[in-house]
Amino acid sequence: MTRDAAATKAKILKAATEEFAAHGIAGARVDRIAASAACNKNMIYIYFRSKDLLFDAVFAASIAELVEAAPFDAENLPAYAGALFDFHIANPQLVRLATWHSLERPGELRTLPITVESGYRKGKAIAAAQAAGTLYAGLSPEHLLPMVLSLAQTWSEGTQIPMSAEDDPVALAACRRAVVVGVSRLINPDPTA
Amino acid sequence: MTRDAAATKAKILKAATEEFAAHGIAGARVDRIAASAACNKNMIYIYFRSKDLLFDAVFAASIAELVEAAPFDAENLPAYAGALFDFHIANPQLVRLATWHSLERPGELRTLPITVESGYRKGKAIAAAQAAGTLYAGLSPEHLLPMVLSLAQTWSEGTQIPMSAEDDPVALAACRRAVVVGVSRLINPDPTA
Repeated sequence: MTRDAAATKAKILKAATEEFAAHGIAGARVDRIAASAACNKNMIYIYFRSKDLLFDAVFAASIAELVEAAPFDAENLPAYAGALFDFHIANPQLVRLATWHSLERPGELRTLPITVESGYRKGKAIAAAQAAGTLYAGLSPEHLLPMVLSLAQTWSEGTQIPMSAEDDPVALAACRRAVVVGVSRLINPDPTA
Repeated sequence: MTRDAAATKAKILKAATEEFAAHGIAGARVDRIAASAACNKNMIYIYFRSKDLLFDAVFAASIAELVEAAPFDAENLPAYAGALFDFHIANPQLVRLATWHSLERPGELRTLPITVESGYRKGKAIAAAQAAGTLYAGLSPEHLLPMVLSLAQTWSEGTQIPMSAEDDPVALAACRRAVVVGVSRLINPDPTA
């Protein structure tokens, strides 16, 4: 691929990420992506073949970022959830892409190699921490992990009361603190702590 | 309105609910709604004026059902969350409608009178239970309520690992139990219980 071709592809992907995050797969318009990338619409079909395959390319990059948004630490899930909260607030377009994907390609995410591998690895670390007594063991890793993610996403895009980086910083900090406190209570192994 | 007109409107609303739940606002096709309701496309424009206003009519009915999906009981939030879980599994199309709405009309839900009123009423009940010492008081009602809803929706449509009524009943029951246990741990006022 020439340097020009690579640059054009990168511009298309950037414009497509914004368009899909804003409008979803069905709502996205290839015309708008071409205009925003300042390229001919035909180039998009030459490089990516269809709107659906262009979404696949955008989503593959986004989900990799989202799955590894924060370093996973089974010994400190409250801090992990707080870091996820920060990432989601700073990257609302990635959360929107994942939510569109869950609506427009239902059930597909849990079968992707990247999410299967990530879930397996994180589940193993949670099981080890539970065996070591540092995590509450009354919820299996396959249930505990999604619930931690759920709490971390309470105020993300695609929820009823999303926060954004433009919101009142005091309110934002209070939501972040609630996530950290909530996850602590969920996973604390010591009922007297 | 004649009986025929009322029946036609009801058929359109039913078909539109299915279409919007499947495809969202941008993705929905008025042609398909007309075909499914077995009516002329013009009738839809006569009764509802536009696709957007038809969505409004569908959403107003759905959000009312969703907001009052389960009787709210601040004294027993784990049972409330379990009942919400059941409702979401039984009515995936309502959860999908709410999720499309959050993506396609971002920020609108928290300003609707029905959600404002519901949040206010539930928040007051939570504050009273906290004052009475039956609920953990370290999280404000405005944070606790969304977190309870978040946990209840962990396995709903629009999430990474949705469950459905067709899924293995044993797996479904395990997820429901995890929601109830998780909410109990979140709200339990007694650290030794």
